[in-house]
Amino acid sequence: MILTVTLNAALDLTYRVPRLTPHASHRVRDVSERPGGKGLNVARVLAALGHRTTVTGFAGGDTGRQLRALLAGAAAPAGDAEGTTEPEPGRVTDALVTTAGATRRTVGVVDEHTGDTTQLNEPGPHIAPEEWQAFLRTYTGLLRQGTEAVALCGSLPPGLPVGAYATLVKEARTAGVPVLLDTSGEPLRRGLAARPDLVKPNAEELAGVTGTTEPLRAARAARRRGARAVVASLGSDGMLLVTADGAWRAAVPQRLAGNPTGAGDSAVAGLLSGLVEGLPWPDRLARAVALSAATVLAPAAGEFDAAAYARLLPSVPVEQTGTG
Amino acid sequence: MILTVTLNAALDLTYRVPRLTPHASHRVRDVSERPGGKGLNVARVLAALGHRTTVTGFAGGDTGRQLRALLAGAAAPAGDAEGTTEPEPGRVTDALVTTAGATRRTVGVVDEHTGDTTQLNEPGPHIAPEEWQAFLRTYTGLLRQGTEAVALCGSLPPGLPVGAYATLVKEARTAGVPVLLDTSGEPLRRGLAARPDLVKPNAEELAGVTGTTEPLRAARAARRRGARAVVASLGSDGMLLVTADGAWRAAVPQRLAGNPTGAGDSAVAGLLSGLVEGLPWPDRLARAVALSAATVLAPAAGEFDAAAYARLLPSVPVEQTGTG
Repeated sequence: MILTVTLNAALDLTYRVPRLTPHASHRVRDVSERPGGKGLNVARVLAALGHRTTVTGFAGGDTGRQLRALLAGAAAPAGDAEGTTEPEPGRVTDALVTTAGATRRTVGVVDEHTGDTTQLNEPGPHIAPEEWQAFLRTYTGLLRQGTEAVALCGSLPPGLPVGAYATLVKEARTAGVPVLLDTSGEPLRRGLAARPDLVKPNAEELAGVTGTTEPLRAARAARRRGARAVVASLGSDGMLLVTADGAWRAAVPQRLAGNPTGAGDSAVAGLLSGLVEGLPWPDRLARAVALSAATVLAPAAGEFDAAAYARLLPSVPVEQTGTG
Repeated sequence: MILTVTLNAALDLTYRVPRLTPHASHRVRDVSERPGGKGLNVARVLAALGHRTTVTGFAGGDTGRQLRALLAGAAAPAGDAEGTTEPEPGRVTDALVTTAGATRRTVGVVDEHTGDTTQLNEPGPHIAPEEWQAFLRTYTGLLRQGTEAVALCGSLPPGLPVGAYATLVKEARTAGVPVLLDTSGEPLRRGLAARPDLVKPNAEELAGVTGTTEPLRAARAARRRGARAVVASLGSDGMLLVTADGAWRAAVPQRLAGNPTGAGDSAVAGLLSGLVEGLPWPDRLARAVALSAATVLAPAAGEFDAAAYARLLPSVPVEQTGTG
């Protein structure tokens, strides 16, 4: 089982409007709702790849109830798999910890004229110290119940210590569970010092935490700060991997047009699934790049196009670029 | 008791952002939630004026549950009235009919730099024929349980017949309850033909339904189409009243800077409260104008500034402008 942690889960709303005009009133043409927050997105992709996945983090209030109902629906076995070659979807098990505060919403407003999205993210509920303690008990319990790998994803909600991810990294290492950290800023800086197996920043997050803008130098700096391996996502330039054994770059051969929302979360799912399947590092990187590209190409934000993934995966060139 | 009907109730969310930039990602600084939809806004103002008010319409799903919880909170007696001269708040009784579909949300995004609001309104749930029949039973029951006046407010949710308001106007007339209709477009046109006691369109809605842009001529046209009285809101030009006995205009003496959200709903509350208190028509108009202005001046959208209302009310000049 793969565990994903989403401390600041969200009910993601997507609104489609003909055209977004600031200071005007809009009738929303179409509303979609889904469980959101990076760790929940990662879990959805892992499930689609056929992996058993458990999600934990916090959920509360009416929005938390909606999120959990949507999660339960998404976790149901797909009924339309007949005749396709995709793997049977894995299950997503809900191990979220209930909070007094209500789960935040995010609203993505899609302008149908330009195709662009305007994003509005609520800050999230304040987490009480006893809720954080309850979470730690759940988390450490799950680490000892057959967790093969864990991903720690996204921002921290108000009230949590800035070293929260460092604590979670240490607990995973103590339990002998490989741990991936995907966050930014001070929580990433603190988390690095706790020596996670892998971090997956984008170029900006990596520069922010290392003070170095050149990706290869910055990734090496992140390793010196404690990460055993670094996968940096470089947008249309693909991804850069740096481990103790070397450095590799990979990108899809063609430029992609589409919505990059969720592409980073799909990459995390690719890296984790490759890890638990025991793939060599370059193959994990190719999987992350192909899944990320298949997410950009999918019509719905944050989903991935399974046919595009199957087509792209064998065509991703992975090139060694250094000695780590 | 005053009854307000909100067929397309909403959970109103207000997001404050430093500056709204299309196609960018925003961290929302502050989130507020309140029961929304015109009839619920009218009820809140009536309660603040000390009137017992019952709300009906539809609510469903998790958003409906949130709306009802907020309504129950708003209906609790205020604990901070000590030492003020404001009337004891009246009660708001929840007589909403539960629907299978979820209550819609509206999102108002306040740009703190310009002070302007960008509004995003979900369309609302589809109402099934049997839900409409259940509502009609509730509504006709309430009309016979001490209702002194009824206001029918806002747009129709998907699934309802376009003549829904005409049906509700007829039922009120059969029960001998004075009925105010505040809607627009075809539902207003159909509703007029059912002979409501009062309609309260703005200039644009009035022009849309009569084909006449000059407000006095348009208001007279609306009376010929069936309304016993018409109050047209003319923005900063105040309000125009046309009855069988004459025509009056009223406006606050000075121009107002503020947020006009909810000003029309406060005007409806002023007209209804004046009706059940037996005030003469010009005094009802002055009350509507003063409440509307006090709503523009309030810091929170849709609330009214009680001190400004008390100060403005005696200063609103009402002038007769015609013979009806």
